[in-house]
Amino acid sequence: MCGILGIYSNKPVNKKLFFGLSSLQHRGQESCGITVSKDDSLKRVKGMGMVSEVFKEDNLSCLDGNIGIGHVRYSTDGGSYDYNTQPLMGFSKGEELSLAHNGDLINHQILRTRLEEEGMMFQTSIDSEVILFLIARYYNGDIVEAIKKTMSLIKGAYSVVLLLEDKLIAFRDNYGIRPLVMGESDEGDIIFSSENAPIEIMGAKVKRDILPGEIVVVDESGINSYFYENTQKPKHCIFEYVYFSRDDATLDKVNSYNFRRRCGEILSREAPCDVDLVVAVPDSGIPSAIGYAQETNIPFAEGLVKNRYVGRTFIKPTQEEREMAVKLKLNPLRHVVEGKRIALIDDSIVRGTTSRNLIKRIREAGAKEVHLRITSPPVINQCYYGIDTPSRMNLIAANHTIEEMRELIGADSLAFISIDGMQRATLIRDDRFCKACFDGNYPVDPIRI
Amino acid sequence: MCGILGIYSNKPVNKKLFFGLSSLQHRGQESCGITVSKDDSLKRVKGMGMVSEVFKEDNLSCLDGNIGIGHVRYSTDGGSYDYNTQPLMGFSKGEELSLAHNGDLINHQILRTRLEEEGMMFQTSIDSEVILFLIARYYNGDIVEAIKKTMSLIKGAYSVVLLLEDKLIAFRDNYGIRPLVMGESDEGDIIFSSENAPIEIMGAKVKRDILPGEIVVVDESGINSYFYENTQKPKHCIFEYVYFSRDDATLDKVNSYNFRRRCGEILSREAPCDVDLVVAVPDSGIPSAIGYAQETNIPFAEGLVKNRYVGRTFIKPTQEEREMAVKLKLNPLRHVVEGKRIALIDDSIVRGTTSRNLIKRIREAGAKEVHLRITSPPVINQCYYGIDTPSRMNLIAANHTIEEMRELIGADSLAFISIDGMQRATLIRDDRFCKACFDGNYPVDPIRI
Amino acid sequence: MCGILGIYSNKPVNKKLFFGLSSLQHRGQESCGITVSKDDSLKRVKGMGMVSEVFKEDNLSCLDGNIGIGHVRYSTDGGSYDYNTQPLMGFSKGEELSLAHNGDLINHQILRTRLEEEGMMFQTSIDSEVILFLIARYYNGDIVEAIKKTMSLIKGAYSVVLLLEDKLIAFRDNYGIRPLVMGESDEGDIIFSSENAPIEIMGAKVKRDILPGEIVVVDESGINSYFYENTQKPKHCIFEYVYFSRDDATLDKVNSYNFRRRCGEILSREAPCDVDLVVAVPDSGIPSAIGYAQETNIPFAEGLVKNRYVGRTFIKPTQEEREMAVKLKLNPLRHVVEGKRIALIDDSIVRGTTSRNLIKRIREAGAKEVHLRITSPPVINQCYYGIDTPSRMNLIAANHTIEEMRELIGADSLAFISIDGMQRATLIRDDRFCKACFDGNYPVDPIRI
Amino acid sequence: MCGILGIYSNKPVNKKLFFGLSSLQHRGQESCGITVSKDDSLKRVKGMGMVSEVFKEDNLSCLDGNIGIGHVRYSTDGGSYDYNTQPLMGFSKGEELSLAHNGDLINHQILRTRLEEEGMMFQTSIDSEVILFLIARYYNGDIVEAIKKTMSLIKGAYSVVLLLEDKLIAFRDNYGIRPLVMGESDEGDIIFSSENAPIEIMGAKVKRDILPGEIVVVDESGINSYFYENTQKPKHCIFEYVYFSRDDATLDKVNSYNFRRRCGEILSREAPCDVDLVVAVPDSGIPSAIGYAQETNIPFAEGLVKNRYVGRTFIKPTQEEREMAVKLKLNPLRHVVEGKRIALIDDSIVRGTTSRNLIKRIREAGAKEVHLRITSPPVINQCYYGIDTPSRMNLIAANHTIEEMRELIGADSLAFISIDGMQRATLIRDDRFCKACFDGNYPVDPIRI
Repeated sequence: MCGILGIYSNKPVNKKLFFGLSSLQHRGQESCGITVSKDDSLKRVKGMGMVSEVFKEDNLSCLDGNIGIGHVRYSTDGGSYDYNTQPLMGFSKGEELSLAHNGDLINHQILRTRLEEEGMMFQTSIDSEVILFLIARYYNGDIVEAIKKTMSLIKGAYSVVLLLEDKLIAFRDNYGIRPLVMGESDEGDIIFSSENAPIEIMGAKVKRDILPGEIVVVDESGINSYFYENTQKPKHCIFEYVYFSRDDATLDKVNSYNFRRRCGEILSREAPCDVDLVVAVPDSGIPSAIGYAQETNIPFAEGLVKNRYVGRTFIKPTQEEREMAVKLKLNPLRHVVEGKRIALIDDSIVRGTTSRNLIKRIREAGAKEVHLRITSPPVINQCYYGIDTPSRMNLIAANHTIEEMRELIGADSLAFISIDGMQRATLIRDDRFCKACFDGNYPVDPIRI
Repeated sequence: MCGILGIYSNKPVNKKLFFGLSSLQHRGQESCGITVSKDDSLKRVKGMGMVSEVFKEDNLSCLDGNIGIGHVRYSTDGGSYDYNTQPLMGFSKGEELSLAHNGDLINHQILRTRLEEEGMMFQTSIDSEVILFLIARYYNGDIVEAIKKTMSLIKGAYSVVLLLEDKLIAFRDNYGIRPLVMGESDEGDIIFSSENAPIEIMGAKVKRDILPGEIVVVDESGINSYFYENTQKPKHCIFEYVYFSRDDATLDKVNSYNFRRRCGEILSREAPCDVDLVVAVPDSGIPSAIGYAQETNIPFAEGLVKNRYVGRTFIKPTQEEREMAVKLKLNPLRHVVEGKRIALIDDSIVRGTTSRNLIKRIREAGAKEVHLRITSPPVINQCYYGIDTPSRMNLIAANHTIEEMRELIGADSLAFISIDGMQRATLIRDDRFCKACFDGNYPVDPIRI
Repeated sequence: MCGILGIYSNKPVNKKLFFGLSSLQHRGQESCGITVSKDDSLKRVKGMGMVSEVFKEDNLSCLDGNIGIGHVRYSTDGGSYDYNTQPLMGFSKGEELSLAHNGDLINHQILRTRLEEEGMMFQTSIDSEVILFLIARYYNGDIVEAIKKTMSLIKGAYSVVLLLEDKLIAFRDNYGIRPLVMGESDEGDIIFSSENAPIEIMGAKVKRDILPGEIVVVDESGINSYFYENTQKPKHCIFEYVYFSRDDATLDKVNSYNFRRRCGEILSREAPCDVDLVVAVPDSGIPSAIGYAQETNIPFAEGLVKNRYVGRTFIKPTQEEREMAVKLKLNPLRHVVEGKRIALIDDSIVRGTTSRNLIKRIREAGAKEVHLRITSPPVINQCYYGIDTPSRMNLIAANHTIEEMRELIGADSLAFISIDGMQRATLIRDDRFCKACFDGNYPVDPIRI
Repeated sequence: MCGILGIYSNKPVNKKLFFGLSSLQHRGQESCGITVSKDDSLKRVKGMGMVSEVFKEDNLSCLDGNIGIGHVRYSTDGGSYDYNTQPLMGFSKGEELSLAHNGDLINHQILRTRLEEEGMMFQTSIDSEVILFLIARYYNGDIVEAIKKTMSLIKGAYSVVLLLEDKLIAFRDNYGIRPLVMGESDEGDIIFSSENAPIEIMGAKVKRDILPGEIVVVDESGINSYFYENTQKPKHCIFEYVYFSRDDATLDKVNSYNFRRRCGEILSREAPCDVDLVVAVPDSGIPSAIGYAQETNIPFAEGLVKNRYVGRTFIKPTQEEREMAVKLKLNPLRHVVEGKRIALIDDSIVRGTTSRNLIKRIREAGAKEVHLRITSPPVINQCYYGIDTPSRMNLIAANHTIEEMRELIGADSLAFISIDGMQRATLIRDDRFCKACFDGNYPVDPIRI
């Protein structure tokens, strides 16, 4: 769960990267960083914290190059250490390279061990360093060739922006698991981004998605596209629409808001319930709840207040303080839920602890019944491609029947959308989505490698 | 526009103040501060920025006293200077006092000038200093007497928490213009707060509102209530429900969420329109839009994405960057609005520039028609009691007919709720609200003083 | 113990104040601040820490006014709190004032209590606020008159720079206890400073000392000098030369370096000793040790290494760490002192603990004998004028004979310069120095007021 | 020019590393860092700035492991970038390593290029990364073997401390060019340090110097020493005594203070002059000036005041400000030098610009004559082993006769100590010192490799 961004321009890109990364902040709040190319060398600033915390007028003004990349990170692979922040940077054969990566490699440990046995040393614990390392290793003046060789070795999900002194490159794994969008402004800026929001914010237009297995190189000679030969049928992560992306994202031809709304509609038919109010768990549950409500003609209401100003705090909490922190984020609206039978719409259940806590608090606020409706199927498999789901052992749906889950969570009833229903919500017939966390069909087998 | 908070406990209150102020962050993001009483003296930390920026583990851990007050500030009176941050602090006659104030005095300049002529000096440019100053001046061991004398001099809106070494005091102006709520926890903590959210977040229960003209003193002897003799019929600021407070606020017996929803319903009857979708300007417009939609059976949809991670940035923008900053905050959802006739529900129009910009962008995203519906009446008078409205000269409704406004803003149609409709939305028959910004009936005449 | 600085120029003075205050850093490392007048209002930045810690490019660049004052503080009166940092600032009768003060008022508490009884409130616990307060109170357009009235009330030591929107003012108490120097640059900048170093660093020339009881006003009309009528015979603090000022200071016609050297020479005649080496306690002991050595023809050697990079640390130490901190500051040079009989030259003994610790460590490094020679007489009285000496109870010399002190400190012999010897070292016959800490002759009686 | 430090203890070493690095601060003020081993993994904090700026209570308290290393850096090889700060850190074959290096490799570029051709990527531009890289590459459980293989490849000057999860290792190049001292405390702490100051500050005792080509490993099994077979006759850098180390340093049996003093004595015989005063350029010139003065019976005086509080500032200066910054650091004492003939004692002349500027200012302060005496021979060759001398082209002595230099610098006379005189000042007959910058005899030929 990360966001990446790259811009090729003929004017300084620092402020654009700042605002663009800010609009990707929902994809990771742990750390962030920017590298730009300026005066024939790369300059980088990165740190722990959100974009508005790490970047200030003074350090941003030092990053006034015309080509640059950025990253926001929510740790998946590798722990929460300063040295694991991105963009990464490397020196090789007289060239400086910097890279920002979204996704997860499944053969990270194998490649790492092999490279270490050959005498390599790593300076982070993240898989992204293996990608940068291999590119640097295979680079001999032809960067596309180096990326292709790297792609032949790395397995898993990766959307990458790569910065050289005079080039901006974007590439995406064979299955196109994680998103990567390309935009262009009237002034000729080329932008690569995990979502379309940064492109729109900069006043540019989305041109297209980077295709699975595609490598796009932007430099003085223009925009050139290459393909890694072994390209597969796409398997875009459906969880991007379920939960991860912004409502205004349109990734690989599916719009997240419409998907979410349709999931709510479909779910209302698959699992109706006799309630007074439809309430969403904000923010990603809201469109689904609206869909659910309108399809059933049950009133939709905001029953939970989300604090818009809560970022990460560095206050180490006691148990009592931890509860305050939870309540600070989401507070039930007593006046709305009191005495009411509620259909609570959430996007997914992973461990089940958040749902249990939330339902308990909604009941305390006076709700008579709470019927939980989930707009994705039960998560029964771990994700190996960059979504931070826990191992099967901790997935509530992998170890319990729906009735057991209902009881554990404390809901009056519990229902999930069907896998087929979710597929239909994409409006795409073709099965071009990775739904492995729901159905176990991993496009890249995490076991055999 | 500020938020205040006070806690009297027998355990350190620093973390509670931190989380509580965070839940009042919507009332002011410019600066914040905390004072606690510890070891017979007051300790204070304050600074520019949001609660999570100013307070870190180390400075918060120094504030481990059992009684304390806090403040979040959005500058109204006095400019954006470090010395204007609150809580204020003073030494007088062997006593240390610290004060946090929400509201605006209308006779601030008169009192200040008079005091200066008598030989006083001020160290901030805010009216709150006059309040603290007068209390310190009249204090001779009897703090209630000092507050009463002060209340006999100051005119306007004030909800105040005052900290002495061994006492926490809360008081509120005669008309109860700005809110002030009292809560109590099972462990006996007494809490005063601008809204109920901090009380709930701490796991405590709301007991009641502080009454107009009431002075509540909490110390070793318990909780004691006093009244300033000249108490008036209440005139609670109705704008708190229109825009300012959180959805989960219940202030002076009116719940903001329900008020907003009812405003939407009433407005839909007063000013219906033939559209495909009802869209809210988030966040305060959402309940009203839901009410409008359900009453009319027109679908409600989220047509604008609000970035939840945008705080204040200190990046000085160029014109181009300013536009990125605006788009970063609020982005139209093309897939929702494209080809649609939209009823756009907003809480108020002040200058009209934000509405114009927003409607322009919704049209650019493909909306066919945009009908603007406002859940408060036209703002035609300046607020002198703490809401940061501009002078009449800059109030669009004070200088234009509704049709002129519609054209300036670029809406297909424009309508406001009636004053009577808004009153009915409170569910209170009695006219106990200040609506001066709409109707010019100032409870405390700002001219004659 | 503080340093003050003021500049009147026709160009921004922020960088000059920065470098100037840095050269006064030895007078106080606890906090610092700068106020400038810009666009008809005063702007101030202040904080805890050294000049290079508090001021950075960004906050300094906001202080680009043409008139300004600055302060470095080592807390004397008032505790180490953020609110006690200077310059202070006040608003009164449409005028903004800012003030920086070096010295101590002896009637601070009396004035403060009286003012509090009259209804004033203070916002710091320092005496400087009383000065600013009185000036603001008496100011009615004639600032000189207001200062004179203030001077008629305040007793004690004060050198002050005062900033108004269009004026820079410097004034000094009747006895001229604390120093205040005036300089002028070729471009016409007027500078007031606690020492001459800032003036020289700015490339300007020292013009003269501000006289006891003098008030100098600089504004568009030029430089005007006024006198408070009740001017006394000067009583300049002799401790400035003994310890406090830089070696390159020339204050009230006495040069510190030469004074210190002569003290060493005189002391060598008054208290010779049979040793192998003369060693100084750096830094203020060095010139005296050189004088002592050259007069006696005993070799001078550096026997103690002072760490030039140790500022204030905020690491809270355990006992073990405290010892490391002490050793970090000053480390005996084993190769120099081993097997040697040492005359150790220090400027003063206050509590005696530092001397005892130091002598112990010099012995551990192998010195055979350590004879302590002090270039000031025994400190037997507390200073009430700004030098941070403890009360008599804690002054080792006030409670012990020299032989007792020698034993407590662990020296082989101990001797002090005579009061007469110290006076002769000034090269001034006239008794124009306050030596109250040595002889008890207080120019302003601290008891009777 | 760097300082390194390592501690093996059975108690947390964070505070000891903090105070120890502070006492090495003179060896580098640009950046610093600490790595400790804790709970089977390494934790590191590093940053730009001085020790007291980078480390605060909170980040230091996270570094509470029992084994640790630290580094202070003045950039030599590699630019002033964040990524070039040390200690470096690497992951290889399940092991975490961290390394701090003082010195310069002469075959850095060759090794780097070769490794890059083999497919390696570097993440810093400093030679230290090559050392860590090679160790990681050759490490297969036997760390000593890996270090020996690394030593067989790297050429130049290196004193290194290396941290593994359970081991602290120190090693030094074959010629022992840069210093490395070992100490032990009563509690059994083992300390490695660039100088003895940290050892003494921690209350421990110096045991011995690490020998040229020696590898010392400290772990649970105790202290074990190994030698790289190809050990050479020592060639300790003599410039450490001339300028770089603290006065209290005793490195490879030469004490810096005594060396400096003897250089002054010898120089006074080799190059006497008829003057009134001997003045030192502080700080390293002081012992030499004392020696010069005592040998000639000319009075020694402090003629220059050094500001003890000037660290690095981040204020970008204009020309006018740059001059203030220079004067802030060092100010001539007018009262001392006025009308006098001065022998000015400095440790070395590199470019000559500092000397010219200083002599000009001493003359402006009134000196009649300034005779410059340098306690090292003319620097005519670049250092390739870690002293930051410029290339020959910019060495004034490499391009000018002494008379030409005298005229350029503006001195009345100019003389240098002889190479032989400097050797004698070490009190060691044996030629065990690298004096390549003076005589061109490079122990490791920088050309042929």
